[in-house]
Amino acid sequence: SANVRAIVMLDAGKYFQDGGLAANVPGRDLGEGTNFRRARLGLDGRLFTDFDYAFVYEFGGSGAEESGRLYEASVTYTALKPFRIKLGAYEPNIGLAAAVSTSQMPLMERPAPAEIARNVAAGDSRVTAQVTGAGSFGSGDSGLATRWFASTAVTGSTIGAAQSFDEQTAWIGRVALAPFNGPAWQAHFGANYQYVIHPGDAGPSATPRYPAQLRDRPELRIDGTRLIDTGAIDARHVSVLGLEAGLTAGPFLIEGEWYRYDIDRRITTAVAPKDPRFDGWYVQGAWVLTGESRPYNPAEARFDAPKPAYNFSPAAGAWGAFEVAARYSVTDLNYRAGPQGTTSVLGAVRGGEQKILTFGANWYLNPTIRLMLDYQHVDIDRLNAAGAQIGQDYDAVAGRMQVSF
Amino acid sequence: SANVRAIVMLDAGKYFQDGGLAANVPGRDLGEGTNFRRARLGLDGRLFTDFDYAFVYEFGGSGAEESGRLYEASVTYTALKPFRIKLGAYEPNIGLAAAVSTSQMPLMERPAPAEIARNVAAGDSRVTAQVTGAGSFGSGDSGLATRWFASTAVTGSTIGAAQSFDEQTAWIGRVALAPFNGPAWQAHFGANYQYVIHPGDAGPSATPRYPAQLRDRPELRIDGTRLIDTGAIDARHVSVLGLEAGLTAGPFLIEGEWYRYDIDRRITTAVAPKDPRFDGWYVQGAWVLTGESRPYNPAEARFDAPKPAYNFSPAAGAWGAFEVAARYSVTDLNYRAGPQGTTSVLGAVRGGEQKILTFGANWYLNPTIRLMLDYQHVDIDRLNAAGAQIGQDYDAVAGRMQVSF
Amino acid sequence: SANVRAIVMLDAGKYFQDGGLAANVPGRDLGEGTNFRRARLGLDGRLFTDFDYAFVYEFGGSGAEESGRLYEASVTYTALKPFRIKLGAYEPNIGLAAAVSTSQMPLMERPAPAEIARNVAAGDSRVTAQVTGAGSFGSGDSGLATRWFASTAVTGSTIGAAQSFDEQTAWIGRVALAPFNGPAWQAHFGANYQYVIHPGDAGPSATPRYPAQLRDRPELRIDGTRLIDTGAIDARHVSVLGLEAGLTAGPFLIEGEWYRYDIDRRITTAVAPKDPRFDGWYVQGAWVLTGESRPYNPAEARFDAPKPAYNFSPAAGAWGAFEVAARYSVTDLNYRAGPQGTTSVLGAVRGGEQKILTFGANWYLNPTIRLMLDYQHVDIDRLNAAGAQIGQDYDAVAGRMQVSF
Repeated sequence: SANVRAIVMLDAGKYFQDGGLAANVPGRDLGEGTNFRRARLGLDGRLFTDFDYAFVYEFGGSGAEESGRLYEASVTYTALKPFRIKLGAYEPNIGLAAAVSTSQMPLMERPAPAEIARNVAAGDSRVTAQVTGAGSFGSGDSGLATRWFASTAVTGSTIGAAQSFDEQTAWIGRVALAPFNGPAWQAHFGANYQYVIHPGDAGPSATPRYPAQLRDRPELRIDGTRLIDTGAIDARHVSVLGLEAGLTAGPFLIEGEWYRYDIDRRITTAVAPKDPRFDGWYVQGAWVLTGESRPYNPAEARFDAPKPAYNFSPAAGAWGAFEVAARYSVTDLNYRAGPQGTTSVLGAVRGGEQKILTFGANWYLNPTIRLMLDYQHVDIDRLNAAGAQIGQDYDAVAGRMQVSF
Repeated sequence: SANVRAIVMLDAGKYFQDGGLAANVPGRDLGEGTNFRRARLGLDGRLFTDFDYAFVYEFGGSGAEESGRLYEASVTYTALKPFRIKLGAYEPNIGLAAAVSTSQMPLMERPAPAEIARNVAAGDSRVTAQVTGAGSFGSGDSGLATRWFASTAVTGSTIGAAQSFDEQTAWIGRVALAPFNGPAWQAHFGANYQYVIHPGDAGPSATPRYPAQLRDRPELRIDGTRLIDTGAIDARHVSVLGLEAGLTAGPFLIEGEWYRYDIDRRITTAVAPKDPRFDGWYVQGAWVLTGESRPYNPAEARFDAPKPAYNFSPAAGAWGAFEVAARYSVTDLNYRAGPQGTTSVLGAVRGGEQKILTFGANWYLNPTIRLMLDYQHVDIDRLNAAGAQIGQDYDAVAGRMQVSF
Repeated sequence: SANVRAIVMLDAGKYFQDGGLAANVPGRDLGEGTNFRRARLGLDGRLFTDFDYAFVYEFGGSGAEESGRLYEASVTYTALKPFRIKLGAYEPNIGLAAAVSTSQMPLMERPAPAEIARNVAAGDSRVTAQVTGAGSFGSGDSGLATRWFASTAVTGSTIGAAQSFDEQTAWIGRVALAPFNGPAWQAHFGANYQYVIHPGDAGPSATPRYPAQLRDRPELRIDGTRLIDTGAIDARHVSVLGLEAGLTAGPFLIEGEWYRYDIDRRITTAVAPKDPRFDGWYVQGAWVLTGESRPYNPAEARFDAPKPAYNFSPAAGAWGAFEVAARYSVTDLNYRAGPQGTTSVLGAVRGGEQKILTFGANWYLNPTIRLMLDYQHVDIDRLNAAGAQIGQDYDAVAGRMQVSF
């Protein structure tokens, strides 16, 4: 079988920044306007009973639309229930926020700490061999045996990356339990881990030769500039640990994750700088004003978008579903950053600390069309190597029109 | 619903130029051969009764094929008859020639004056919010009330443009009436207007910072070189006014448009050059030899292609429909150009004057396949800043194989 | 009608090279990892009884995935049996290995001598007008009259090539006979020829102005580096002659081709170097262990992949079809290369000689999914202009997951 799929998201927004920012501040004049954040065309279906496939092509981008490219190509073998074996290039399941489909998230972008984490050895278009299990082993199972999720994968590089000398190799895994639940509520606990066995080899003449880099955009991508960034660090290994918790009760959802990122430096000099360690966390909540709930999806261990009880049809007095959401996220990419006005010490990483408060309102006209409006306050605190403050505070407002089927 | 759509146009052609053109003449050796002018793949359909959508991806190009890119993504709300509200990136309705689908035009390319006009604040892949109305308000309406068209839109930048600091913002509108008609004939009158509220911001270090530029290729794109071009002019506003008239009678069609382009300069020097003004016009006609007509499409205020009465099937003695067409277009992008041999005065724009005479023959094998053959004589009169003639005269012959469904 | 088609091939592999190769050896550290060799999305079908069409878009690449691009757009007129007229950009039929669909080849890549040949004036995405005939002229025909194939075409440049001043023009043709056959066996003999009437014009300021170049990757494209390469040779004409033979008997197939490449130099100096001539050949065999055969496809004069008698379904005790294959290919792009340690003489071409021995195993799970494993030993013997050896010997192992429908 072959089903045609499409996801299109058109973003429009405006940034309210200080006018007098110094020329060395990254993103001192962020570009406002419009952007197709995603424009995907895809096929999926079943082949000969036991194989599912998905081929997806992406024509959108961050900051500006890019040329069309392969986004996902995967085949899943489904005959070994409760396990699925999935091979190809796709987004492996690696965390609570990472697992949610982008068309079902309560705010326009993922929380930065989860976004940085998933891009280490998971994320979009990653060549992956993953085994996932969920639910029950047998028909007689009940209780906790029906509410578990586990996945593990070996991952490589991402599609479209320029050819390297040798690609990154990593092992990743995630476990989740939904131990407590009632007729109208559901709790979720989870943990995830990524270990980069060896980073991609940039070649004998590259410096650094095995680069690891943590960075992200400020939870909005009308402009594609990244405001926090560790820079490329020569690395032997990278590891990421994440802890997850969530609770849904009727129309309410609250969830959060905490992440720690460790970079094991590759030492090529006599003096050995220390291995840097970073962390980040977020808490977010959503309330569906029209009473629908964000259902728990046990097959992927995530919370999906509400499905409107009545589709938009003013003539019938139906307006769809409305939701409000909020989030606070903190991402600290500083390591031994030291005080302002001082030059950075050996091994210091001045990647910057980012705190973002976001409020959002979502209108689900029907299962395929959604309108979003987000307001965010962004606070960046970052020093450059000389010790000057190159962070900034600003506000931004953005909207999104989304069609997905 | 999801309908798969495709438009493919393969052009092949040859240019007959003087051999002794000087090295400073733009396009002195135009490249002949073949080119996929358009290669589109798309989906369209209806979502939940009142929403229409269209997602189209383009893999063709002018002069050479480009990488695949998003061409159109739009959603139209259709429940407020006789009005339609359309949001997304697409080609807004802005003129008589601009409104005609490229697969239904009587000649291979649009007339240059209309092409330059539509690219100011409309054109392909423009982010747009447009309201369109046509036809009758109520079921009892008759006469003129059933033969009007009006549209207005706010437009931004186009898809795939490199990220600017702030995008262009414009307001555009079009009105048309079809006041006179009989059983076998139909007249059309229209006017259209575009006003660029502020041009795109190229950033604090760019010169000019707010560029406006009028230019076009010579109504054939086997080679993608533009022969007339105002260059980038620092602008506060740009406006375009167009007047339209057309008449169809049985197998005959005659139509024309006149355009005026005004650029309101942004003055950054003590001496203020005058604001330049340009104009252009064209007249074109078509005759369907096999007797079919080019029907008037009131929903878009345009003339569509003839539909063959009998599809190509030699065994059945049917050969499809045949049409001949001709056009004369004049586009003057000179402003205070002055005589040959003189250097240009302050505020002068030596964009060049282009006159093109085109004859065409079209063979509609069936509603999906069309073959075209165009002959054109191009006459460019253009001075460079030093006063040398960098224009040229030449002839060109080109054919097109077109499949669209 | 519109059928959706897709071909996706995900390759993964590892190269085993000497560690101490000099810095001037091309591909001295080939990049291992993964690569989507092909990722195609397409439409095909029939239009109004007598016209077939195919539109295919490619998102894969060699060494690294590329942006999406038009791969094929063609229309075939089928009403003049036994002839078909095909117009558009596609891969014309030009040889035994070239004619086989990439999803049906017994080894992961085509033999290098055939790959180099087809890229002269045929190959992927070539703008082509081709007439093909096969089979019988009338219903009463029998014997040899039913077992012939002939095709001839005029070809231009390929899609997506940067715009040149004038495109390449060539004439190509192929004839094949299947004169001997029995209930379980079939012989094939063929010949093919390409003649480049004029190479593409790179423009008045380019050196060489009319470049002809023969080169290829070493029958594996995890890394996209080409190890043998004549460099660009200024040419008036290029011709290629190929001879083909094949025999299938039950589960066994053996086939081979021999190619000669002639470059007619364009002389722009007083001293006239001789016209270089190169050649190459290969022999390959396949054995379907589960007993299916590689059927002869008379419409294209080629051997197709086996169709598994039983699709993979362990519960039913069915595992699909298994096949082993082997090939030895020799490609000599040296012309008057001279001995090691000497500088090259006038007109010499030190493109290198490549010998590759490949063994492969293929698992056909069902008609849409195939897994491949190839081992190859590559031996490159090549001098640079100064006379140093820049060839190398190495082994490589690679696997492929392929989905096609």
